Amino acid sequence: MNNCTATYRLYDDKADFRKKAESIAVGMTVGSWTELPQAKRESMQKHLGQVLKVDVHEPEGDQPGERYADVTIAYPDVNFSKDIPALLVTVFGKISMDGRIKLNHLGFSDDYLSAFPGPKFGISGIRDLLGVHDRPLLMSIFKSVIGLNMDELRDQFTRQALGGVDLIKDDEILFENELTPIEKRVEVCLKAAEAASRETGKKLLYAANLTGHTSSLKSQAKKAIQAGANALLFNVLSYGYDVLHELSSDPEITVPIAAHPALAGAYYPSQHYGISASVLLGQLMRLAGADLVLFPSPYGSVTMPREENMAIRDELITNALPMKTSMPVPSAGIHPGLVPLIMRDFGQDVVINAGGGIHGHPMGTEAGGRAFVQAIEAARQSLRLADYAEAGHPELKAALEAWGGER
Amino acid sequence: MNNCTATYRLYDDKADFRKKAESIAVGMTVGSWTELPQAKRESMQKHLGQVLKVDVHEPEGDQPGERYADVTIAYPDVNFSKDIPALLVTVFGKISMDGRIKLNHLGFSDDYLSAFPGPKFGISGIRDLLGVHDRPLLMSIFKSVIGLNMDELRDQFTRQALGGVDLIKDDEILFENELTPIEKRVEVCLKAAEAASRETGKKLLYAANLTGHTSSLKSQAKKAIQAGANALLFNVLSYGYDVLHELSSDPEITVPIAAHPALAGAYYPSQHYGISASVLLGQLMRLAGADLVLFPSPYGSVTMPREENMAIRDELITNALPMKTSMPVPSAGIHPGLVPLIMRDFGQDVVINAGGGIHGHPMGTEAGGRAFVQAIEAARQSLRLADYAEAGHPELKAALEAWGGER
Repeated sequence: MNNCTATYRLYDDKADFRKKAESIAVGMTVGSWTELPQAKRESMQKHLGQVLKVDVHEPEGDQPGERYADVTIAYPDVNFSKDIPALLVTVFGKISMDGRIKLNHLGFSDDYLSAFPGPKFGISGIRDLLGVHDRPLLMSIFKSVIGLNMDELRDQFTRQALGGVDLIKDDEILFENELTPIEKRVEVCLKAAEAASRETGKKLLYAANLTGHTSSLKSQAKKAIQAGANALLFNVLSYGYDVLHELSSDPEITVPIAAHPALAGAYYPSQHYGISASVLLGQLMRLAGADLVLFPSPYGSVTMPREENMAIRDELITNALPMKTSMPVPSAGIHPGLVPLIMRDFGQDVVINAGGGIHGHPMGTEAGGRAFVQAIEAARQSLRLADYAEAGHPELKAALEAWGGER
Repeated sequence: MNNCTATYRLYDDKADFRKKAESIAVGMTVGSWTELPQAKRESMQKHLGQVLKVDVHEPEGDQPGERYADVTIAYPDVNFSKDIPALLVTVFGKISMDGRIKLNHLGFSDDYLSAFPGPKFGISGIRDLLGVHDRPLLMSIFKSVIGLNMDELRDQFTRQALGGVDLIKDDEILFENELTPIEKRVEVCLKAAEAASRETGKKLLYAANLTGHTSSLKSQAKKAIQAGANALLFNVLSYGYDVLHELSSDPEITVPIAAHPALAGAYYPSQHYGISASVLLGQLMRLAGADLVLFPSPYGSVTMPREENMAIRDELITNALPMKTSMPVPSAGIHPGLVPLIMRDFGQDVVINAGGGIHGHPMGTEAGGRAFVQAIEAARQSLRLADYAEAGHPELKAALEAWGGER
């Protein structure tokens, strides 16, 4: 029998967790069981949820803490259609509202997975597009773009591009607007990218923010691609995972999609409620086909605990899934001094993503990009950043002075 | 200037909340302000967020409690497109991930509202369809429908319909399936509804669950309507509010839409994080055009505090919005003895919605419906349920004995 699974953490001071697990397994599938006549049970058996595991954690005598159980339940695939809304409603629809419960992990059956082509590019595809295979990628974020006209936008784009970054992404709060509509924006920025490429010798992906009504997103994406867009940014959680799934599955959407985590904080930070960051920004983003996934880094101001970052990373790159990997993009508060630490945590399959850490560089945006390029090169050669900075890399030196050195 | 507003509760033991509010107002709009040259400030002024209010609550000396502030910020409409994803990303995208913060209220400008026709039917429209204007409506939920074939489904439908309910809704976990596909299900159930109507003399709405891929929902809805569907059920949160907005705005979708709260518990129950129930299931559901909105009642097992229920109700029916009202449907744990209490809390513009409280009736499903009809009639006449039960209403009597009397 094919099942998807869900693992929850249930908190309760005195509940019989085994009984509670059984009631979820029955209640979220066939509804009732013990009352069913024997003949009916036989025909319903294939629809019945099964409790796979109940791990009870009792608080220790001298360490008070909370009483909880990690519970895994199998949900027969036959009960739901092969889309993310159906799975989420099945495993967490009603019970999300039933006391202290957090959804911490999902398991996908092969049959369920068969409906998900996954990321179209993934880590290797993005590396192929950029022709970069031996180091972390570098992404720069537009800063304060609301209210900019096209010339100002082009100017900011060019300064980022000349710094030698691999990817530039729109601000996620840049919506369709009269000053810089997506088609025009893509056209202008890609032209600026080409000009910069002739100087830097580097390829560049520009992720344009896909916004508007749900039904218009595909045509918006295709218009942007026609205008030359070579990547897209998408606020997945404000639209739903199925929208990303449909975008990423569309053969005419021929560019990588970067998933932004906007609104994720409405789900993951509570200990007792919601959906864990690794499900939300790891498992479901990759399942839905995100090529790159942004999430709050543990390094800066908007922080997530390091172990949650590592759990997201694991889901994005695990080879347990029959689909391409997604590139992790830990974001917020990133400056060049953090590059070696990021590479210790993520290896080289990571995007170093900076906004303030590039635009706020004491020597300007272009130098900000260069400082990161230098930091990545130093880390790649296992050189100390401070030493590399002294060896004729003034941009890195200024960055280390401004934000602090290697950690 | 047109603005939408957002009110947050920020928790922090020692932060300068005014400063924090200012940094949100700037950070979520123009990005930076103090660094801007004067000339630039003039052109950016119309994009700048404004702090409207900062109410700091210091914990009292002898009542420890937590330190928090209620902060309201105005976001210029010019910054975002007139759709719910854009508004949510603007007001809660990034900052949802930045410490302990909960989104507690939204304010919509007239200009923003102009893009939202709201519920097509609303309370008055649903009453017109049913020809019932002077009492709460009664809704029955299919129970344990997974694995049922069409004959079993028809049988359960008929027993509910003969009990005299006004609305019957699909289980939200009934997805498109081979046994009971939506078009066939609608056809069979509506025929059963007609037959039952001839006996009860009552009209009946059947809300069929709309499922599948996002891009197929409109055509699924239209097929169901062609097959005779006179209402739809929709798991809004698994798809996103914009999908409901687009469904409810479509002139060819000529039936009321009931919004199911599946997954809502991933957002609202935490004190420190997420989105309040009144925003999630009140303001945004109505804005997106839900004619009926289900939410966990404060009466039963899946509970929400009463004041949160009242806050949802207020948002669904307030006449401060230039759109139709949405019918509140407090759900879960409802039995006939609760009817007077529900009417004290909600007045008569409410749907009494029961699953177990109908199917679990000691005399069967049909009697379960009748017990509610009797309870509603007693409450309408301001009679005590126990007295009315004794006066020749054995179904109500049995219900009060099974689940308890008036509270």
